Formats: sequence, C-alpha cells, structure tokens
Amino acid sequence: MRVTTIRGPRDIRLEERPVPSIEAPTDAIIKVTAGCICGSDLWPYRGENDITPGDTIGHEMIGVVEEVGSEVTSFRPGDFVIAPFCHSDNTCPNCRAGMTSACVNVGFTTGGQGEYARVTQADGSLVLGASREDGMPDPDLLPALLTLSDVFPTGWHCAVAAGVQPGDTAVVVGDGAVGLCAVLAAVQLGAEQVIAMSRHADRQELARKFGATHIVEERGKEGAARIKELTSGVGADAVLECVGTDGSMRQAFACARPGSTVGFVGVPHGVELPVSRMFGKNIGLAGGVAPVRHYLPNLLELVTSGAVDPGPVFDMRLPLDQVAEGYRAMDERRAIKVYLDV
Amino acid sequence: MRVTTIRGPRDIRLEERPVPSIEAPTDAIIKVTAGCICGSDLWPYRGENDITPGDTIGHEMIGVVEEVGSEVTSFRPGDFVIAPFCHSDNTCPNCRAGMTSACVNVGFTTGGQGEYARVTQADGSLVLGASREDGMPDPDLLPALLTLSDVFPTGWHCAVAAGVQPGDTAVVVGDGAVGLCAVLAAVQLGAEQVIAMSRHADRQELARKFGATHIVEERGKEGAARIKELTSGVGADAVLECVGTDGSMRQAFACARPGSTVGFVGVPHGVELPVSRMFGKNIGLAGGVAPVRHYLPNLLELVTSGAVDPGPVFDMRLPLDQVAEGYRAMDERRAIKVYLDV
Repeated sequence: MRVTTIRGPRDIRLEERPVPSIEAPTDAIIKVTAGCICGSDLWPYRGENDITPGDTIGHEMIGVVEEVGSEVTSFRPGDFVIAPFCHSDNTCPNCRAGMTSACVNVGFTTGGQGEYARVTQADGSLVLGASREDGMPDPDLLPALLTLSDVFPTGWHCAVAAGVQPGDTAVVVGDGAVGLCAVLAAVQLGAEQVIAMSRHADRQELARKFGATHIVEERGKEGAARIKELTSGVGADAVLECVGTDGSMRQAFACARPGSTVGFVGVPHGVELPVSRMFGKNIGLAGGVAPVRHYLPNLLELVTSGAVDPGPVFDMRLPLDQVAEGYRAMDERRAIKVYLDV
Repeated sequence: MRVTTIRGPRDIRLEERPVPSIEAPTDAIIKVTAGCICGSDLWPYRGENDITPGDTIGHEMIGVVEEVGSEVTSFRPGDFVIAPFCHSDNTCPNCRAGMTSACVNVGFTTGGQGEYARVTQADGSLVLGASREDGMPDPDLLPALLTLSDVFPTGWHCAVAAGVQPGDTAVVVGDGAVGLCAVLAAVQLGAEQVIAMSRHADRQELARKFGATHIVEERGKEGAARIKELTSGVGADAVLECVGTDGSMRQAFACARPGSTVGFVGVPHGVELPVSRMFGKNIGLAGGVAPVRHYLPNLLELVTSGAVDPGPVFDMRLPLDQVAEGYRAMDERRAIKVYLDV
C-alpha cells in the first residue's frame, strides 16, 4: 500500500509499505477514505521535532473498517468510522473521567496519510459514522466528518478547558485550523464576543464565517491593549491558545482577565510559563492533548444535524499522491488545512 | 507606636514609628487587636526576598476602627473588623468578578504586626466582625477570626482553584498553616478522602483534627507512588499546592490525575512549571493571590456559626514585644503559626 513518510526536514514521500495487520485481538484495520495534514505535522516537517527517517506520518483519518481482531464486537468490516487520532479503551478510570487521551491503554494513529491504518482498542476508539448497511455518508459531509478525528475536537477542548461560558468574551490566539475550530467551539458554547487574533485575510474571513465578532491584527503589547479596549479594560473572560509557542502563550496570558483561564491545545515548543504573572493575576492554565473520543459523540451529532460545519477549514483538497505539495502549501501558509483523498 | 520591622535576614525588631494617618478619604486607621506571622514573611526573614532595611512587616490583623476618612460610610470608630491583607474597592470589574485581589485600586496591609495600621479602600476592604454597640467578640473566637485576614481564605482559595468537588480525593502538599487550612477547606467542600503530605507529627495531628483522612510522609517519586496507591492508580482528583517552591510544585503535578487541576497559593519562588507534563496529562494550574475579601462573608459565617474552627493553626501565642521569638519559632518549625497579642 502507499503511505506518507518523512525522511527529513521538508522531505515528504509517498512510499510502498505492507498493509498493516491485526496485532492484538482488540485492533482494527481501516481502509482510509480521507486523511489530512495537521499543524502539528509541520513541527517535524520544519525539523523542529526529532524523527526517524522513513517514519510514517499522519494521524487524522476517516475510513471503512477492513478487518477486526477477534475481540472487537462493536464494528464489522464495511462500517464507516471516524478514528480519533488518540486510541483509548474507553473503560479505564481516566477514560471514565472523560480523559480518553490519558487512557491507560493509549495508542495513536501513525499512518493516517496512507491507504490503510491500524487502530488499537478499536471498540473504545472508533465511532460509527455509518454502518455497512447504511453505506457511505454524503460526500459533501466528509470534510466535516474528517475534522472530528482531531482538529475540531481539539479546538473544542481548548474552549472547554478555557471555561467558555454563555455571555463571555473569548479571545482565540492562533488562526490555524485549530484556532478556527476554537472560534466555532466558543460560539457554540455561548460566547457573546469572540475575538480572533489573525493577520491573514483568508483566515479572518473564515473566522468571521465561524462566528468571530471581532478580528484583532495587532500582536504583543499592542494586541493585548486592543483586547483590553474591547473588554472594559480588564481582559478576556477566556483565552484559547491554539499555537504552542512561547510567544503565543505570552500573548494569551497578556489578554486574559484576572481570574480567567487560558486553554491550550498546541503542543508546547519552547514554552516557559509566566508563573509569577499567573499567580499575581490568578490566571489559570488548562488543556493539553484533546480527549477526542470523549467529545466525539456530541460533536458528531452537531455535525450530522447541520448545527455546525467545521468542513471549511479545509481550503485545499489534493489526491494522496500530491501529499508533498500539501505540506508545502501549509508550510507556506498557502493553505489553512489540506484534505487528502485516498 | 510600636511596629515590627525587618532590617535584614533574621533581624526582626519592634521599633517606634508615628501612628499612621488618614491619607485618602477612603482610608481607615485600625487599632490592632491581634496580628500574626505568615509563612510568606519567612521569605524575607530568610533573605530570599529583597527588602529595604527598616520596612515594616506583617499583613494579617484584626482590630478596632480608630479613625475613618471622610468618604468611609460603612464603618465607624469602635467597630471591630477583620482586615483582609489585600485591600480592594469591591466595586471595580475585577472585584465584581470575585477577583478582589486584582482590584484596580488594590492595596496591602504593611504594618499588621504593630499597634496601628492603615487600610485603604476601607468600605470595600473591611468586614465587620462586631459593631461598636455589640462590643468585642468572645476572646476565644479571636484566633479563628484572625485566620480570616489571610491564612484560612488562602487555603480556601487553593481548594476552590483546584476545583474540589463532593466525593473527590484531594491531596494537600505543604503542612504549614495554609496547607492545614486547605485541608479544612477541602473537607468543607465535600472531599471524601483528604490526604495531607506531612512529615511532622504535630502538623499531622492537626491535619487529622481538621479532617484529613490520610497522611503521606513520603516525598518525591515515593510520595507520588503512595498517592497512586490510594487513588486506584490514577492520581488525585484535586491537588492543593500550599508551599510555592519548585519541588513542591513538581510534587503536586506528580500526584494529580489526568484532567485534574493543581490549585496553588504559595508565592512561587524559583518555580519552573512542567508544561510538557501539564499538556500531556491535561493537568491544569489555577490559583494565585487569594481574593480574601470575596470569600470573607461566607467564611466568617462558617466561623461564627461554629461550623469550622481554623483557630488551632495558631499553636504559639506571644505578646507583640516577643515578635522576634515568634519568627525564630516559625523559622525553626517549633511553631506552625504565631498569634501576636497587641
């Protein structure tokens, strides 16, 4: 089968590999319908994460169950499923507490930009999109369904972690696909003002489409000053940090009102948390690896009912064999997020 | 008047100074009935905070209103009051949001270990303990009332920030007076298991008296392993960090279950937050300078009704002129917290 690999910085290839097989009786093999490129894939792409040359890459996918292990009881070959990037048994104490990304049997999708991928703890991990009797979902719905494997629940987690309440003013730091999904989530959770910090016209437009009420282009002190102007001088009720750099984290804390919480979902890179400011202003921090599986049933309902459509975060669609161009487009900010037809 | 000053590390003196006067029409002058020594006073005492030699020290006090400024309408000379260490107008947006320690007109008690002290924003800051018509409270109640100026609300804030819920297992890191008050708070908020991490017999005894169900003497990895044993292998639902050192903070994060929150109220000294662990395990951090005034009416009711008695955190009582001995006793851990009769 063909699967995307990374051999070094900016060296993305489509290579031949054996189709993955059932290794544990709780595994399932998925024939991938569509995968996509995550902002976090750009860290190794840009040489900022260690890799082993030839590693497969890609952790977001939807697809059809090809084969299941002997202990898998909830899915059959032919079922269309959404695969959270993070696999979980959904029965351990952490899963029962809603923290599926800390499952004691946690696993991760590693070949989601390829033709087949293995999902561990299939009964706990997968969510049914359509049974084999129902056939495939409407093709127009596939982009929105694909966002459910990571990017939309991750934005959602950021809003939940930041404690967005009805009537709040929420600030979203980061205008990538996660940040845009965080805008959508903040609106759904009832925020009255949603301020997207963005300097890119295309992303500003999508942020507004997703419900942002204000765009702030300024950054640093000027950005924080603009947020204060919009919030009676005190700062935002909730700040959603969707990047993961030290600069974006500092921006987030500078925009947060005393007593509020910064939600964070961008994998931290070189972040040194401003503990004295956090203490002095009582600004909390919450978030982390999104428990996608925990949120999925609710978010699937929001998507299939038409209440929300995160699909437009994909502004470029390519066949799998052009995956390298997809990485280039995202790296150069020509695309917000790339959908890969497999 | 006599007031406590610090001239350098381990150099505490009682010196003569002018009685403070009304400087703003919103000020009040308090004749101090009792003050006390805070764990945070030990930072400058040990030379770990910068000071100006001759600074007055002490920020916790109860007393009788001596004089009020022309704009003070809620208090009259003769009223017995509790003075939160942090002064606030109680009307600004931060105060209205419950974050009185971030009041836009914030001030601090600076001469609480002395005969008289000035409180700014008196109408917003002070809380009536007994009107001048009612006379002074029962002397037996004074220790508990004095805890309301800082230590008990600070422990309470830690439990609130950590999100203690009924039925939870809460771990308290730090067996100083704040940690012991945090035990009391966690019990009041409904925690079913309250684990005090303590290696001192006298403090363990008080922790048990305050409702701790378990004592863990181990620290570091062994301490975290003991907490896991007591929590089905996953860690505590809420961790209350009441010290402020890097070691105690790491201990707190090591004891917290995925998805939980570490509450912190110890002024951070040399703390580097473990952001990767926080992200990977979804362990949040919340807390800071306690909004004492916000909690005070509720906690005063708990104290005067007899529902809780934080008074026993004072295990040494000295006249003001022995204040230097009080510092020595706390520094050498011969006393948990020292009450000063003024």
